[in-house]
Amino acid sequence: MIKVSVFYPNQEGKKFDMGYYCNKHLSMVQQKLGAACKRVDAEQGLGGIEPGSRATYIAMCHLYFDSVEAFQTAFGPHAKAIMGDIPNYTNIQPTIQISEVKI
Amino acid sequence: MIKVSVFYPNQEGKKFDMGYYCNKHLSMVQQKLGAACKRVDAEQGLGGIEPGSRATYIAMCHLYFDSVEAFQTAFGPHAKAIMGDIPNYTNIQPTIQISEVKI
Repeated sequence: MIKVSVFYPNQEGKKFDMGYYCNKHLSMVQQKLGAACKRVDAEQGLGGIEPGSRATYIAMCHLYFDSVEAFQTAFGPHAKAIMGDIPNYTNIQPTIQISEVKI
Repeated sequence: MIKVSVFYPNQEGKKFDMGYYCNKHLSMVQQKLGAACKRVDAEQGLGGIEPGSRATYIAMCHLYFDSVEAFQTAFGPHAKAIMGDIPNYTNIQPTIQISEVKI
């Protein structure tokens, strides 16, 4: 199982519409990716481990697929629509990585 | 539900023993945190979204709790033992954040 993680850095002065992200964007992503996407997790950064510290990421989401190929096949045809929706909820540039699920 | 995410930056020349991390360290963490820890996810970074690019994080783990207080109560008594085990698998300093689970 692989995991595609999207991280939105918690940058001062930037905007992030969590309501749109969870209710509109991620719903659209799941609908477009279909059954190839086995699971979606999304979270909102509260803070760092030290009380009062900032969270590194204001939001993150994680999409699970059986393989990198399954992700690429599902995502490729919809990449433009999915990436094109980003300005509707944020002006933060996300970092993305692909990982292998170990536990 | 809250999520405590631990990120290990993918730094050149540093070591990370994934076998020890998954089989020894995270088993010990789960045993010490007990039932307060509802779920553990761990993954190994494969790469960035662009083919051939590096993953930002060589490893990540995510621990789920009902609340920040539940995490602090479970983790506090074992913080020294858990953090003290880190040098056994890595010389990378992790970043940690607490997030609220949205999806």
